[in-house]
Amino acid sequence: MVRNAFYAQSGGVTAVINASACGVLETAKNYPDKIGKVLAGRNGIIGALEEDLIDTSLENPVDIHALRHTPGGAFGSCRYKLKGLDQHRAQYERLIDVFRAHDIGYFLYNGGNDSMDTALKVSQIGQQLGYPVVCVGIPKTVDNDLPITDTCPGFGSVAKYVATSIREAGYDVASMAKTSTKIFVLEVMGRHAGWITAACGLAAESAGEAPHILLFPEIPFDEEKFLVRVSETVGRHGYCCIGVSEGLLYKDGNLMAEAGGKDAFGHAQLGGVGQVIAQLVKDRTGMKYHWALADYLQRSARHLASKTDVEQAYAVGKSAVELAVADRNAVMPTIVRVSDAPYRWEIGVAELKDVANVEKKMPRAFISADGFGITEECRRYLAPLIAGEDFPPYRDGLPHYVRLQNISVGKKLPVFSI
Amino acid sequence: MVRNAFYAQSGGVTAVINASACGVLETAKNYPDKIGKVLAGRNGIIGALEEDLIDTSLENPVDIHALRHTPGGAFGSCRYKLKGLDQHRAQYERLIDVFRAHDIGYFLYNGGNDSMDTALKVSQIGQQLGYPVVCVGIPKTVDNDLPITDTCPGFGSVAKYVATSIREAGYDVASMAKTSTKIFVLEVMGRHAGWITAACGLAAESAGEAPHILLFPEIPFDEEKFLVRVSETVGRHGYCCIGVSEGLLYKDGNLMAEAGGKDAFGHAQLGGVGQVIAQLVKDRTGMKYHWALADYLQRSARHLASKTDVEQAYAVGKSAVELAVADRNAVMPTIVRVSDAPYRWEIGVAELKDVANVEKKMPRAFISADGFGITEECRRYLAPLIAGEDFPPYRDGLPHYVRLQNISVGKKLPVFSI
Repeated sequence: MVRNAFYAQSGGVTAVINASACGVLETAKNYPDKIGKVLAGRNGIIGALEEDLIDTSLENPVDIHALRHTPGGAFGSCRYKLKGLDQHRAQYERLIDVFRAHDIGYFLYNGGNDSMDTALKVSQIGQQLGYPVVCVGIPKTVDNDLPITDTCPGFGSVAKYVATSIREAGYDVASMAKTSTKIFVLEVMGRHAGWITAACGLAAESAGEAPHILLFPEIPFDEEKFLVRVSETVGRHGYCCIGVSEGLLYKDGNLMAEAGGKDAFGHAQLGGVGQVIAQLVKDRTGMKYHWALADYLQRSARHLASKTDVEQAYAVGKSAVELAVADRNAVMPTIVRVSDAPYRWEIGVAELKDVANVEKKMPRAFISADGFGITEECRRYLAPLIAGEDFPPYRDGLPHYVRLQNISVGKKLPVFSI
Repeated sequence: MVRNAFYAQSGGVTAVINASACGVLETAKNYPDKIGKVLAGRNGIIGALEEDLIDTSLENPVDIHALRHTPGGAFGSCRYKLKGLDQHRAQYERLIDVFRAHDIGYFLYNGGNDSMDTALKVSQIGQQLGYPVVCVGIPKTVDNDLPITDTCPGFGSVAKYVATSIREAGYDVASMAKTSTKIFVLEVMGRHAGWITAACGLAAESAGEAPHILLFPEIPFDEEKFLVRVSETVGRHGYCCIGVSEGLLYKDGNLMAEAGGKDAFGHAQLGGVGQVIAQLVKDRTGMKYHWALADYLQRSARHLASKTDVEQAYAVGKSAVELAVADRNAVMPTIVRVSDAPYRWEIGVAELKDVANVEKKMPRAFISADGFGITEECRRYLAPLIAGEDFPPYRDGLPHYVRLQNISVGKKLPVFSI
């Protein structure tokens, strides 16, 4: 029986979420006896709720293929969390109405922890309402905090970007330190887990190389110990480069920097801790600083994507379709690490119930005893994830990315207010 | 007659100043009948004043060649401005003493406006003191503000970086705008001239593409006009990406953001205007923002260097040596544009007296009438400067850069306090 598939992107986008989309769309074509059209949600799940569906079959296959090297979310993403079935029952029922109206038999949802929870609930409501829909999650998050899977597509490219950036800035600061900037701080993402902060550490391959200090969200900030380490580092090497997580906490558990707002998931909007740290050093030591806030640059830097990451992102999209047509409901493809060196990986499968809303923390054993660096074990884990380059095509000196036409499917249902 | 050459790097370093160093060192070897050793100043001119000279002949030629793809300043740079001959006469005389002690007949100084002034004065004091030294400046500055030369090595790579970054962030924000971030602000360098801000504009090739608004240091900030434009842009495209210069001025001529410090040249240390702009939009419209501060990342991003820029940086280093051995005193090689499309350039020569302390402003005709964008004329000027890629080698997923041994020459003179 041929049925349509629904695909949507959720939460913060990455440099490679479109590679997963590419994997979904190109693989779906291999199953004409199972999958009709792939309809994409415009702006994620909101597109499904509002019946704003994009007919991906109208896109040029060349453009679909170019998604592999295009950052951002080609169909639009959203920060909109479907809550429990009791609280948001109307929304879940609406989803099923839309699926029924468009003969959607496969629900492919590309996101992080919250999204895997939504995919699980959609599979449950489908069963409750007697509407058969196969729900498969596709992992994506720069935060690398999904459980079971060895890593999350999106993370490896951010990791490569921050490690490259702090290495390059380190070469700069080392040149200037004699008479000018001695302190450089790079603030990176990673709200609750220090995976991205840890990745900065890959840049330092020998003693004295940048970064010299990492400040993890897992290690409450100890001001005096930090300042001693800064002074020692400048004394020994002439300068000090610091990578700091946006989620750094004071000892009392308060976030060091809150921009004040909260996002749709109720998370505090962070940013600015880099300046707090830099200014602290300046106030206490008088040393001149510079600081950088990579912000979205780090997660959209497709020009510096990890080849491993791109391949894994494509693979989980491909696998999701294969799982769906094999009628594997409420599952998510995972990355399974077979060996560190040489790095080998394969695709596995996790149950959504084991993934939904579970956050993978960084092991304490990945952080050095003093709390300011990464261990060899951490380096072994991270190193393969940034391996290889996968440069996009360039035109006129800039990466050449695709924009799809995103033509809507005609609506069949009454308007629904979310 | 064979004499030694002195080479030093000055001021803020760039992604390609070492390519100029490479051009100097590799070319000097072609003139064994004129140039003995090239001695580099450790940390720029300070190395000369302190007689802290690096013997570059002890480096492996493979490492010297790797300078072509290594960011930062390989011998160290400094922010130390030699003032007039009357104020800093002892320093100038000390330079001549050091040159005499090490048989230095060529002074090659790689920097911006201030450095060209120093090179000029060294040539004057040499004549006054009867010590023959040929002084040649080598242009370098991300600010692109040296006169006569069509562009300054270092600028093209920053231009490529900021245009790439705001394009990539634009793809990200466009995906998120429906329910989350609608405003993105990228703060870029360029203290007095909007060259780097203008380069952001290269990313927008069609209507509606990021960046949508540029805020130049040349155009005093008009809050109401800006907010109207932001609202129009979000209304039309759903989101708004803004590139803003660190040197943006209020209408009263005050800098919008001063970090408070001043550097060794007496310039205010800038940074944070991006957040001021973003917060203004949030306060007045309620729209969620993200902002990024590229800071040193933009000028050290050798991984994304412009091929044109790398070639020109090497060429001016090479030319400086050729001018020196031809006894051309008090000059600087320049980039001469022969044609825009196809882009053709050649090396010219300027007198240091015409370059020293003169700042090239961006023509008003390069900024659109409304003050928020670039003109076609500006695009024609900028486009060739970011053309081509020149990727560094990668090892273990990261750009592989060189560190020289930097072995000191023995001192022959008493200590000198600067």
